[in-house]
Amino acid sequence: MSTADTIPVHPAWLPDAAFAPLGSRRVRVALGPDAADPVAATVLDEVRRATAAHGGALVTDDGPSDVVLRWEPDAPAAGFTTTRTGGVTSVVARDAVGLLHGLHALVRAGEAAFGADHPTVVDTPVAPVRMLDHWDNIDVHPVMGQVERGYAGGSIFYADGRVRDDLSRVAAYARLLGSIGINAVAINNVNVHRTEARLLTDGLSDVARVADLFRPHGVRTYLSVSFASPVVLGGLPTSDPADPDVQAWWAAAADRVYATIPDFGGFVVKADSEGQPGPFAYGRDHADGANLLARAVAPHGGTVFWRAFVYNHEQDWRDRRTDRARAAYDHFAPLDGRFDDNVVLQVKYGPMDFQTREPVSPVLAAMPRTRLAVELQVTQEYTGQQQHVCYLGPLWSQVLTFPLADGATRDVASIVAGVPGPGADAPPSGSTPTGGITAVSNVGDDEFWTGHPLAQANLYAYGRLAWDPQADPVALLDEWIGLTFPGADRRVRDTLHTLMDGSWLTYEAYTAPLGVGFMVDPGRQHYGPNVDGYEYSKWGTYHFADRDGVGVDRTVATGTGYTGQYPSPWRETYEDLATCPDELLLFFHHVPYGHVLHSGRTVIQHVYDSRADAVDVVTAWVDAWSALRGLVDDRLHARVAERLAEQVRSATEWRDQVRTYFFRKSGVPDTTGRPIH
Amino acid sequence: MSTADTIPVHPAWLPDAAFAPLGSRRVRVALGPDAADPVAATVLDEVRRATAAHGGALVTDDGPSDVVLRWEPDAPAAGFTTTRTGGVTSVVARDAVGLLHGLHALVRAGEAAFGADHPTVVDTPVAPVRMLDHWDNIDVHPVMGQVERGYAGGSIFYADGRVRDDLSRVAAYARLLGSIGINAVAINNVNVHRTEARLLTDGLSDVARVADLFRPHGVRTYLSVSFASPVVLGGLPTSDPADPDVQAWWAAAADRVYATIPDFGGFVVKADSEGQPGPFAYGRDHADGANLLARAVAPHGGTVFWRAFVYNHEQDWRDRRTDRARAAYDHFAPLDGRFDDNVVLQVKYGPMDFQTREPVSPVLAAMPRTRLAVELQVTQEYTGQQQHVCYLGPLWSQVLTFPLADGATRDVASIVAGVPGPGADAPPSGSTPTGGITAVSNVGDDEFWTGHPLAQANLYAYGRLAWDPQADPVALLDEWIGLTFPGADRRVRDTLHTLMDGSWLTYEAYTAPLGVGFMVDPGRQHYGPNVDGYEYSKWGTYHFADRDGVGVDRTVATGTGYTGQYPSPWRETYEDLATCPDELLLFFHHVPYGHVLHSGRTVIQHVYDSRADAVDVVTAWVDAWSALRGLVDDRLHARVAERLAEQVRSATEWRDQVRTYFFRKSGVPDTTGRPIH
Repeated sequence: MSTADTIPVHPAWLPDAAFAPLGSRRVRVALGPDAADPVAATVLDEVRRATAAHGGALVTDDGPSDVVLRWEPDAPAAGFTTTRTGGVTSVVARDAVGLLHGLHALVRAGEAAFGADHPTVVDTPVAPVRMLDHWDNIDVHPVMGQVERGYAGGSIFYADGRVRDDLSRVAAYARLLGSIGINAVAINNVNVHRTEARLLTDGLSDVARVADLFRPHGVRTYLSVSFASPVVLGGLPTSDPADPDVQAWWAAAADRVYATIPDFGGFVVKADSEGQPGPFAYGRDHADGANLLARAVAPHGGTVFWRAFVYNHEQDWRDRRTDRARAAYDHFAPLDGRFDDNVVLQVKYGPMDFQTREPVSPVLAAMPRTRLAVELQVTQEYTGQQQHVCYLGPLWSQVLTFPLADGATRDVASIVAGVPGPGADAPPSGSTPTGGITAVSNVGDDEFWTGHPLAQANLYAYGRLAWDPQADPVALLDEWIGLTFPGADRRVRDTLHTLMDGSWLTYEAYTAPLGVGFMVDPGRQHYGPNVDGYEYSKWGTYHFADRDGVGVDRTVATGTGYTGQYPSPWRETYEDLATCPDELLLFFHHVPYGHVLHSGRTVIQHVYDSRADAVDVVTAWVDAWSALRGLVDDRLHARVAERLAEQVRSATEWRDQVRTYFFRKSGVPDTTGRPIH
Repeated sequence: MSTADTIPVHPAWLPDAAFAPLGSRRVRVALGPDAADPVAATVLDEVRRATAAHGGALVTDDGPSDVVLRWEPDAPAAGFTTTRTGGVTSVVARDAVGLLHGLHALVRAGEAAFGADHPTVVDTPVAPVRMLDHWDNIDVHPVMGQVERGYAGGSIFYADGRVRDDLSRVAAYARLLGSIGINAVAINNVNVHRTEARLLTDGLSDVARVADLFRPHGVRTYLSVSFASPVVLGGLPTSDPADPDVQAWWAAAADRVYATIPDFGGFVVKADSEGQPGPFAYGRDHADGANLLARAVAPHGGTVFWRAFVYNHEQDWRDRRTDRARAAYDHFAPLDGRFDDNVVLQVKYGPMDFQTREPVSPVLAAMPRTRLAVELQVTQEYTGQQQHVCYLGPLWSQVLTFPLADGATRDVASIVAGVPGPGADAPPSGSTPTGGITAVSNVGDDEFWTGHPLAQANLYAYGRLAWDPQADPVALLDEWIGLTFPGADRRVRDTLHTLMDGSWLTYEAYTAPLGVGFMVDPGRQHYGPNVDGYEYSKWGTYHFADRDGVGVDRTVATGTGYTGQYPSPWRETYEDLATCPDELLLFFHHVPYGHVLHSGRTVIQHVYDSRADAVDVVTAWVDAWSALRGLVDDRLHARVAERLAEQVRSATEWRDQVRTYFFRKSGVPDTTGRPIH
């Protein structure tokens, strides 16, 4: 596959060389009754392709083989098992999708999959739905562009105001997603503009073309829809969930969708949020709204992903009583138990908006009778926009393994997997998803998919953590390196770890300090630094720095009361200055600059030191990467080098502006004597 | 004339009713040898139109008349004379343009022109060139839009990527300009993009169509050109002024222009400024660059307006040694005497960029052997963007009457008129312009021309002050009111004075304090408030506020040395805190918040008070204007009411953000106890 100007698209973690251990062997595929499944064809294709390239063979009869991929009716309902016995490695699954996932597990393991015998290992995904959301627009939006929060060129789905004729990039993308276990994709922006709304009606044949490309990789297609569709598309006078004509319109719309795409996943909805229409206009609540759509797709096995990202975006910066962080809980927690079984409430991991550091959203612990999905962001909106190296695996791992509910016993992953907790009411049940994980994708029509080639690792790690939230993110990174740079020099591997392992913490260290967030240019930009960029805005995103101190008092005792939305022990932990973690201090407390952190440093000295130290780290990366010239692909090397230069420039701006800003306000000198301007 | 949807375009200061005193009389027109001039036809048209509407008569023979407009070869070289004797009012001029200007002087005077006899009054324009620059783009610029810094809709010249077929708005605009003595117009943006560059070549026939519409009103047409034209349009390898091929290219280009438009005015050039190409690329200076173009147009009587707006726009905010305010002087003062006679150096009135308050540019006093034009800005880029009432007549009057050179004896108007000063070297001479006044226009294809209907007064006052810089700006405003609202209720006149007379000072009082400038959103926006909007930027526009004080030290003693660019007594006046005017204090000095102004208030209390008081003023305007409903045109009333609501909202934001910003930094309470957030 090539772009028009014949520059090959980067293979990401699926270069041919990564298939050598599998492809050099005799691989028997026994598909059973699933042989007619489109995914079965993919399994066969992958084996044919690998063995053709590396000298092995596809075995479809009972002949001798080194590897067996076998359908079995009593295998686990999802995922696969692996065994090695008598020199043969077996992968067993209940369906073709499981076999595909098992095949890629062998690829990832490489020669290690063919070592010593081992008993059966069961590999089951934790989150039943593992989704990627695309914030792609069909029409280029005058402000937000082709891909809202896209940092990797245009859309792989749309160009020139319509679905692309040539969808070969989508096919390649589907293969990448299938290889890491992603099983759902929403193909248009949750801010649904007029043209995009019509995908649901006039555009269905195009959606079907896209779905046809995802299906062979075990990925179901979803659409973001506008709650106002009955008015905008149907010409009805209302979109009121209680109106029978509205209900009938949605039912008919769903019927048409499923007649065209029988395995269509369902809808993603952003309602009554940041200007999108929703049920509030009719005096209805979010449960009414979500259930309206859910009942339309329920007869077809469809699911509605309803976003909990609802807050007042016309806030008065003068009014310290309101708190955007409280909003999702205040809106949704009272609705627990009111959502239909095929509604999944999609909750951003933190209470604000994909900041570099946020506490985990208390909504996730507050709705035991609701199916929940946690929403992450692979696209680096606030984390360097794919100009900066910022490997997000450690952030997501921390979120997913965070023991939010029931004291220390239930982590976020188990909550969104729908595992019932000891104190929970009746757990969700039925054939519909019990929860999920979703994230905004970071790909575009860029040669390297993600703008910054190293940002591919974020997409990879997201898929892998969605499958197994307990995985070590640094081990996943190593896995990604091995696949993406097969046979690479040891120095390549070491240098990538040097740059990437701690890059999230490094990014945090030169940007907004101690959990306070933002400090970026508002609107379309969301790139920094701009310390006061959001300070006097309507968005509810403030740091309240003055000459004495900084931070947001969200305590119950003296602040907005947000800490009270957490279950114990977190409400007490965050409430108390003595126990609040340093990295979230300014999210929860307004403190004087001289406040001493658990680290032993004052807040102001921490601000000074971290920013300066982090720039030193980033600056060292430039030389480290430079030393790899000739050891990795030249184009990739040049692209990374170009982005590292921007990262150093930007990080230096962050350092100097943040240090100067707080020095001008506090008047406290940097005890190390490093220059402040 | 109407727009496509039949809403009539507002007649501005030329409604039919304003012509009643003249039009109800017998008007004799004696054009002499100028009868064939296109302007002569306009004079006749105006008289015919006025007398037809109001019962008078055009007299072209020796019959009795009440008014005479007469050509005379020994009348003043520019302008006209008026006399009233024996009950007959006479206007005498040496050419048809003078008669047109005299005719409109009668219209402005109204019945007063027909009162008691009076001896001859000579009315001669001060600035030989009185120009308007249009920053209109042909192609809509992706960032800056159709009209760069345009706040009144699209361009009257261009639409859909080309010169409009229907130029009727241009014809009406030309009539408005001719009526107030404007005699030059540049029809495209000084930032010359690719499409606009071609006006000089492929687009000449369209330029000629535009020039044909301006010519009958005594207005010559100019083009903004790209210094890189020989490369971009001519395909030459260089634009070096010393290259004979480049010189020949420009000469040939000028020959073609003048073959098409014999009275073409000349070129406007922004070179080596904010990314525009210029002579620096070839190791040449601005005199080399300007003279290159001047020599191309000299054989045809053309003039080059060369902008002095040159500075480093990649400044490091950390570096307090550089000072953008110094740039124009540093670049141009050493070149005095090096420019050809048909070059006019176009100097912004202040050293920065059209701020609400700036000191007068020292360049104007520094180049006695150079023809100079002062550049004003009618479009309200930094003064409320035609959302805010901000009558700029008082600002321009203050600039033009400012005694900058030779102590208190020579004002800016006399400098740009080319009047030699007592200590000057050989004054400019010859048949080419000795100087001029130019300004960026504020009109667009808006129904009211200027977005805010009251912003028409700025266009009017600009033309009148360009003719007579000594005119009282409030008297000009009264004149404008009389023409624009003929026969209006006394309350209309009084209310308009209430809103407009001091509106510039009111705007200043709620925005950036004490001459420090900016505090707006950067880039395309330039609307506020955003106190730190330009603080950490590359644009050289800082206020340096910290917890102790604010302002820019531009003194010779301890600062950037900018005060040393002024002649005495200004260098001493600005240098010394004891004599520096309050309103420019923070432009010249960094002072503690407790510094006591000449007004007796501290800086911080002034910041607090002025902002709060000014919002009270603006808020009162809403009721005052509301009371005029029914007394002025309904559509105009509604438009102004809508803009006033925005002005109150915006002024309130300014008040609250500026007060809070400085309170957070200074910690000093407002002694009046008014709320700070």
